[in-house]
Formats: sequence, structure tokens, C-alpha cells
Amino acid sequence: MSPASEPAVLLLSGGMDSTTLLWHLRAEGRDLAVHTLSIDYGQRHRVELESAAALSARAGAASHRVLPLDPAAFVGTPLTDAGLDVPAASEDRQIDTVVPFRNLLFVTLAAACAEGLGATDLYIAPVRDDYEAYRDCRREFYDSLERTLRLGAARDAAFRIHTPFVERAKTEIVALGIGLKVPWELTHTCYTGRRPACGRCDACSERLAAFAANGAVDPLAYE
Amino acid sequence: MSPASEPAVLLLSGGMDSTTLLWHLRAEGRDLAVHTLSIDYGQRHRVELESAAALSARAGAASHRVLPLDPAAFVGTPLTDAGLDVPAASEDRQIDTVVPFRNLLFVTLAAACAEGLGATDLYIAPVRDDYEAYRDCRREFYDSLERTLRLGAARDAAFRIHTPFVERAKTEIVALGIGLKVPWELTHTCYTGRRPACGRCDACSERLAAFAANGAVDPLAYE
Repeated sequence: MSPASEPAVLLLSGGMDSTTLLWHLRAEGRDLAVHTLSIDYGQRHRVELESAAALSARAGAASHRVLPLDPAAFVGTPLTDAGLDVPAASEDRQIDTVVPFRNLLFVTLAAACAEGLGATDLYIAPVRDDYEAYRDCRREFYDSLERTLRLGAARDAAFRIHTPFVERAKTEIVALGIGLKVPWELTHTCYTGRRPACGRCDACSERLAAFAANGAVDPLAYE
Repeated sequence: MSPASEPAVLLLSGGMDSTTLLWHLRAEGRDLAVHTLSIDYGQRHRVELESAAALSARAGAASHRVLPLDPAAFVGTPLTDAGLDVPAASEDRQIDTVVPFRNLLFVTLAAACAEGLGATDLYIAPVRDDYEAYRDCRREFYDSLERTLRLGAARDAAFRIHTPFVERAKTEIVALGIGLKVPWELTHTCYTGRRPACGRCDACSERLAAFAANGAVDPLAYE
């Protein structure tokens, strides 16, 4: 990529959607220097971080970062004890429950990262199937966050949060990815974090159904 | 505090402003269960976290938490190396520079914490002196973030970000705190992180000036 490339930050989980977005940006032929960012938040399927690194290298990303975000943030566990009551809610130290404000935290970390890179374009890959379940996958949310970022930036900066797949179904993403020759075998989807993938969890089932709907075979290894 | 108290989350740095806000909430006589939250982001004046814990205990806070936020988030240091270029900006690993989106990250962490506690009221203590320098201390920013939180919450939740001091000057905060008998000797302000405080850094100078303007003497130990 030329030094004059426009820098951008892409949140890359290592799954199908963000990986297809990375290949989509490459294929567009725009002079973008895509810096990929993955978040290590103690997810059970932490192995997806290895996928994100391998995919970034394969795609020729300008850089790849993994930022840690302590899972304690999500479960509200008191990490200090000043002799105060420990709320009962904190007893439930499960990481794999709903992560409050996950995308808000992730995009904000991406924006903080972008400030250091002189970038204002952020890419994230929510798809239509997501926003039916998660409110922080709707475009309305990203519009509001975009405004919040612009108001909160150290300088008046025209941050943009790009969500090009927000109205697309998972099956469309697979169709697009097949056309873009996404190396599916490097991606990770299985929620259990197993490799080969379990093929039975919600995430695997959804993935396999999206390939089947395209009359295609997922090249990923399954148990 | 009675079990029926309304839960709220206060971002407590251990400095003058957030401590005065904690005492202000106590004095209001409302039936609030104030859970204090401090963020350990590798700040040079990390000793303020000890102040926050001591002040939470003294104030009878419902709980006190310290959440870690890895400083790498702020300096954009690549933590993994997949053979990719390391951007030049990442060479400058100083924590004490401007922290991009600090308040956005802090309030989002407070909101994530609040979800676990069943709280929707968040308190943070920017003052007028802050917002002249920092855009993320302006009420306009918090209005936008409040909307973003409501849109991004797992459920439709009426999050409120309270910034009661946003139009008050630091000298007014000291006046208010004196009236509320804030234990100033437990707070921490010095930017160098030293105890006794240096008395010369920007933060100490501003603090001493605010006491002087009130014709009062700061009981904190200075070198």
C-alpha cells in the first residue's frame, strides 16, 4: 500500500462477516490502508484472535492489533475490597453471558486507536441477522455513536462509522465472500472455541445454513 | 442504606470534583445506593485509586470497584505481531498524553457496570474548567452519549448521565465541598502521583488556587 493511502480501522473478529468486509474493502480498489483491530475480552472462543491475525496477514492489512479488555468490566466483579459489600450480582462470573455495551466499547476502542493513526474511518460488520437480536447492531445506534465520537474527539474530527453490511443477511455475506474468494478455512465461528468446529452450536449452525443456502460447501474443518 | 435504595453508579477518581459529588449525593438525602467506580488505566497518579477506595468507605458507598483498562488501548501499541508493519505513532508509548475518548470509555464502562447492578443513573463530575480544555467534558457530549447508551443497551433502558457540576467552576466546587465537610486530606490531585503532593504541577496549582479563592487552607500535605 502506498504511504499516501487513507488510513482506516476495521474491527476484525476473525469470523465470517468482518472477514468478508475486509476482503470487500480490498476488492473495492480504493486506496485504503486498513488497520485491523481485534479485542481480547476473555471470550470463550478466544481462538478467533488467531484467525484474525492470520487473516490480517493474508489480506495485507496495514497493521493488526489485539487490544485487551478485561472481562471484569462486563461482569461487574469488584476487584478491590475496601471493606464494602459485594453485590450479589457479582457472584455470577460468567463471561459468556450477554456483554453489555460490547459494540459501544469496541467501536470506542477502535476510535481511540484511529486517533493514534490519524484515521477517522471506522469499519464494523454487523449484519441484519444480528440486529434482530442485538440493539447495538442497528444503524440507528451507530448514527448516534458517530455523533458522540465527533463531539468527544480531542479535536473536531469527522469520524465515520461504516456498517456496509447492516442491511444484508448472513446468506448474502456468504455469497459475497464466495465471490471475493474469502479464505473461509482461516476464519473462526464456533462458539465453543473448538477446532475443528463443533458444527452444532448456534454459531456453527447459522454458518452451515448460510453455506447450504448458497449451495456451497464450507471448507472449514468440522468434527 | 435500605435495600429499597435506588442504585446509581458514580465515577470516582479520588480527586476533588468527583469526591465532592459523592458528598453532595449523600447530603441530598435521596434514597440512593451509590456504587463508586474507579478506572485503573495506568495513570501516572495511580495513587488516586487508593484515595477513591478510602473515600468510598468513608462515604458509606454501597460498593466500590476498580476496573482495569489496559493503557495499550490509548497508545495504539500493536500487541501482536503477525509480521505486519508497526506504525510509527506507536513508538511513543507515553501514558500521560491526551487520552483519546477517555470519558466515553469511562462512562461506557460505568454503564456496563450499571447494567449488572440494575442501575440506570450514572454520575460523573466534569466541571466548567474542564470543558474549556476537553471536548468530552461538555454537556452536549453527554447528551449524545446518553442517547447512544439508550440505543445500545441490551434492553430499552432509560440511562441518564448526570453531570450536576458541568456549569460550575472549580472554586465553586471547593466552596460546596467545604460546606459538605469533604475530607480533603483523603483526596488526591497531584499529577505527579507524589504524596505529599508536589504543590507545583498544574493540578496542584489549580487546587491551591481554588482554596485560596475561598479564603481557605487545603489540609492536604504538600512537600
